Amino acid sequence: MLPTTARLLVSCPDQPGIIAATTAFVAEHGGNIVGLQQHTDHTDGAFFLRVEFELDGFDLPRDGILRAFAPVAERFAMDVSVGWSDHRPRIGLLASREPHCVHDLLHRWREGELGADIPVLVSNHAHHADAAVWFGVEYHHLPVDGEKAAQEQRVREVLRAHDVELVVLARYMQILSAEFCAEWRGRIINIHHSFLPSFQGPRPYHQAHERGVKIIGVTAHYATEVLDDGPIIDQDVIRVSHRDDVDDLRRKGRDLETTVLARAVRAHVEHRVLVYGRRTVVFD
Amino acid sequence: MLPTTARLLVSCPDQPGIIAATTAFVAEHGGNIVGLQQHTDHTDGAFFLRVEFELDGFDLPRDGILRAFAPVAERFAMDVSVGWSDHRPRIGLLASREPHCVHDLLHRWREGELGADIPVLVSNHAHHADAAVWFGVEYHHLPVDGEKAAQEQRVREVLRAHDVELVVLARYMQILSAEFCAEWRGRIINIHHSFLPSFQGPRPYHQAHERGVKIIGVTAHYATEVLDDGPIIDQDVIRVSHRDDVDDLRRKGRDLETTVLARAVRAHVEHRVLVYGRRTVVFD
Amino acid sequence: MLPTTARLLVSCPDQPGIIAATTAFVAEHGGNIVGLQQHTDHTDGAFFLRVEFELDGFDLPRDGILRAFAPVAERFAMDVSVGWSDHRPRIGLLASREPHCVHDLLHRWREGELGADIPVLVSNHAHHADAAVWFGVEYHHLPVDGEKAAQEQRVREVLRAHDVELVVLARYMQILSAEFCAEWRGRIINIHHSFLPSFQGPRPYHQAHERGVKIIGVTAHYATEVLDDGPIIDQDVIRVSHRDDVDDLRRKGRDLETTVLARAVRAHVEHRVLVYGRRTVVFD
Amino acid sequence: MLPTTARLLVSCPDQPGIIAATTAFVAEHGGNIVGLQQHTDHTDGAFFLRVEFELDGFDLPRDGILRAFAPVAERFAMDVSVGWSDHRPRIGLLASREPHCVHDLLHRWREGELGADIPVLVSNHAHHADAAVWFGVEYHHLPVDGEKAAQEQRVREVLRAHDVELVVLARYMQILSAEFCAEWRGRIINIHHSFLPSFQGPRPYHQAHERGVKIIGVTAHYATEVLDDGPIIDQDVIRVSHRDDVDDLRRKGRDLETTVLARAVRAHVEHRVLVYGRRTVVFD
Repeated sequence: MLPTTARLLVSCPDQPGIIAATTAFVAEHGGNIVGLQQHTDHTDGAFFLRVEFELDGFDLPRDGILRAFAPVAERFAMDVSVGWSDHRPRIGLLASREPHCVHDLLHRWREGELGADIPVLVSNHAHHADAAVWFGVEYHHLPVDGEKAAQEQRVREVLRAHDVELVVLARYMQILSAEFCAEWRGRIINIHHSFLPSFQGPRPYHQAHERGVKIIGVTAHYATEVLDDGPIIDQDVIRVSHRDDVDDLRRKGRDLETTVLARAVRAHVEHRVLVYGRRTVVFD
Repeated sequence: MLPTTARLLVSCPDQPGIIAATTAFVAEHGGNIVGLQQHTDHTDGAFFLRVEFELDGFDLPRDGILRAFAPVAERFAMDVSVGWSDHRPRIGLLASREPHCVHDLLHRWREGELGADIPVLVSNHAHHADAAVWFGVEYHHLPVDGEKAAQEQRVREVLRAHDVELVVLARYMQILSAEFCAEWRGRIINIHHSFLPSFQGPRPYHQAHERGVKIIGVTAHYATEVLDDGPIIDQDVIRVSHRDDVDDLRRKGRDLETTVLARAVRAHVEHRVLVYGRRTVVFD
Repeated sequence: MLPTTARLLVSCPDQPGIIAATTAFVAEHGGNIVGLQQHTDHTDGAFFLRVEFELDGFDLPRDGILRAFAPVAERFAMDVSVGWSDHRPRIGLLASREPHCVHDLLHRWREGELGADIPVLVSNHAHHADAAVWFGVEYHHLPVDGEKAAQEQRVREVLRAHDVELVVLARYMQILSAEFCAEWRGRIINIHHSFLPSFQGPRPYHQAHERGVKIIGVTAHYATEVLDDGPIIDQDVIRVSHRDDVDDLRRKGRDLETTVLARAVRAHVEHRVLVYGRRTVVFD
Repeated sequence: MLPTTARLLVSCPDQPGIIAATTAFVAEHGGNIVGLQQHTDHTDGAFFLRVEFELDGFDLPRDGILRAFAPVAERFAMDVSVGWSDHRPRIGLLASREPHCVHDLLHRWREGELGADIPVLVSNHAHHADAAVWFGVEYHHLPVDGEKAAQEQRVREVLRAHDVELVVLARYMQILSAEFCAEWRGRIINIHHSFLPSFQGPRPYHQAHERGVKIIGVTAHYATEVLDDGPIIDQDVIRVSHRDDVDDLRRKGRDLETTVLARAVRAHVEHRVLVYGRRTVVFD
């Protein structure tokens, strides 16, 4: 059993002394740092920091940490957040017809690989019902018949009812409204089945085949109001050839989609992702 | 020493009997097939074939092969061409300021890896002169001062004077005219420093950095009138992260550019590439 | 619906006329070739061929093809076999404790991606019982308590009872006897969790971590009497670093194991693999 | 022009307070940290740290830093070293017959990509003489005729005469004596043309072809007394198939050898590598 840790995430303008001040704060309160990663964007003068320290022996209660840290945060004009290694965020899974990402994430969840819980699965298609029973997740079939806004409203109600902290679009083919994106801003992860920014929009495997690319890819990103445009968390690719028709691209792509989406979810859950502008810092 | 071979390249509508007829033709004339690759595009009903056979023992002279094959070609409405393994096409190298692709191709040429010759190097920058002397290639420094069309005219004259069969744009940053593209249609290979169709146009590494992609790539393609749009021959990628600034992307990209351009040139020289529409069949 | 095809697999000493004779045979009987791949090993003088042709319009019955082809086969001293695109081989799945490969293959089977059927799952561990019910596969829990030979005997009886044509070792941690290997020679596919020939034997991820490699891999191969030594069908790798402990290697490796094993099974099922000596030709 | 930095490299047993003490030391003396990477090996309880800080504004002279840091180092039982971003280590290049790694490193050096200088090239083959002149590096042709120990003695004298700090074995096919390895311990980088630990010893591409692997690789590692056994710095791989004969493996491998060796040299030069046991921490 790993000891419980706090993960402090910091963004601020770059200047001398940030790491020293932050690590001194942790040390003064008896914390043992087990991981520290920082990144300085020299072009923009931006600084990013993740400090992970053990709570055992730390002399502040969890809900007192940010308050005690406030003077440091203020001095460096920091954006700060804190997460806990023993907190399992509640994931709301949204899917359309394709089962592979849903199935893969639920399997990883059951095998204890995810560090999060999946209490609820919502789909505009009916046929995930059996899988939901087998994996023990509540299922809501919310079809889109005509009134798209009403359907989305019901989806949001379901997610709220389950206190969902992270929305994972596991091949959910419905475009989200700006309101939806705002409600879970920075907490909606989508898997797009192309190597963005190539082949945005519908039917990317058809587009890739039509263009004759020799490598295809997939992209996990935070969803924003602008379709397929949010900050990229992870990508991966696989080589294809003239022998691969659209169905082959789909099949090869599916294996990428499952692994890249799972990696992105893990990175988010472990508080390793910092967004700035349209980019991300993903500590590893 | 490998025996000399002929490489027959065929494109035609798909129908039964093409391979049988073609291989029967080769066998009847005493040819030993050492390699045969075919591809059927079931979506478009298109058929592609590459047959490589030894000329030793073959009872037709080189310049009689296509004539003797004409009845077969006609029967199946084939586009046919033939190449020879002992023919070393003459490459005209065009470059701008960056030396890495120029240097790499000249090094491969000298080490005997290319299967082609490079008699001439043209650049709109002066500083490849020393390398040209060292590698023993004729050098033409043709700067673009104001009159771009005149400069291109001189480039074309140089290429013609050297009987150039294949033009390789080894990071040549000038846009070619439609006339240039037409003169060497299907025989101009460009290396674009992005994973096309992402980041077309200028400064793709800046674009990639700005977008925050987690993988960058490069693309070797036949140049056409439309910029960065021609049929793709080969692509490759490398993982990057938030730690990589634009200079890091450039440095990582350079290694991809040299290897992918060299692979594409080899594929063309070995008659392994068939173009159809905006796509290619690259036999391996 | 794709038309049904026959796949002729040929190995023989290299000599002129093999392709012509084989394709002429197909053409004479009215077969339309939809795929032909050949490979000549110039070092060993060995020739390999796969010809796929449509059965619709072919004037021989399935069980008459090899007999009719015998004169050609004899003339070139061929090893020949034939398979059918509409034949779904019966797979017997063997597993130990780890569920990921079992789960992945069963999922692909249900989604129709495999081109084969999985009637039976055997494990020396009990806990796949629920999954077997959910996926609708017969489950046999055959633990190894003391008498290993007796357990293997029962495994073989179960496989025979289900007419298993292909045995897939989906992380089955028991060593097979020479008799077992002989009974399904060339029809047992194992996934080994290292990049063979590195780290043969037990606990390869521990070995990899201990050695400090920067890339790990997995290997799908035909099982033979000699442990981890059979002909390799497919391999894949992933980058690791000093940050990855043994559990991280295991987690990253799992995703490789599932995809590589599935690719190898597909290649075998589609009659694209030819074994010669310790090597394979895998047509794509 | 980037500001000059110091790079402090630390290894010690893990315990609380190391980062805080180290960064406090830097901050107290007016240093601005521009990069900090740490790694804790939880299995072995080992801690590794790299701190890079600007010398501009730092109130200690370069040769006073380690002395001033000694109390911190002592308290945590640290192994400490320090390097400078403006120090260009002197590389001695050793090569045998193959030119590609030599050529590649010299080209990168001339293009300013290496962060080091290459004053001398030694080979037991004569034919790098022209390249040495062209790149402006002193060349010593020291053939091995019978008396191997005497030749190595002369090699060492040449390296000493040039104050060589880093020995790079750019496909040098002679085995080094234990004395040689001891003299430049931790400062000899070798490129081995296999994916170690597979295919140690001679002719790895032949071994790989014989074994029928589907991926080949190369390994850059520190050379030790035990052949092909030293700590691995970097590795890379490329997919191969039955179509690739030994010459194809060699050709594909060459591109890997050049890029991986260059990456390993850069990592060493930039003080990003820490060795522990047979493993390395390579910060990126």
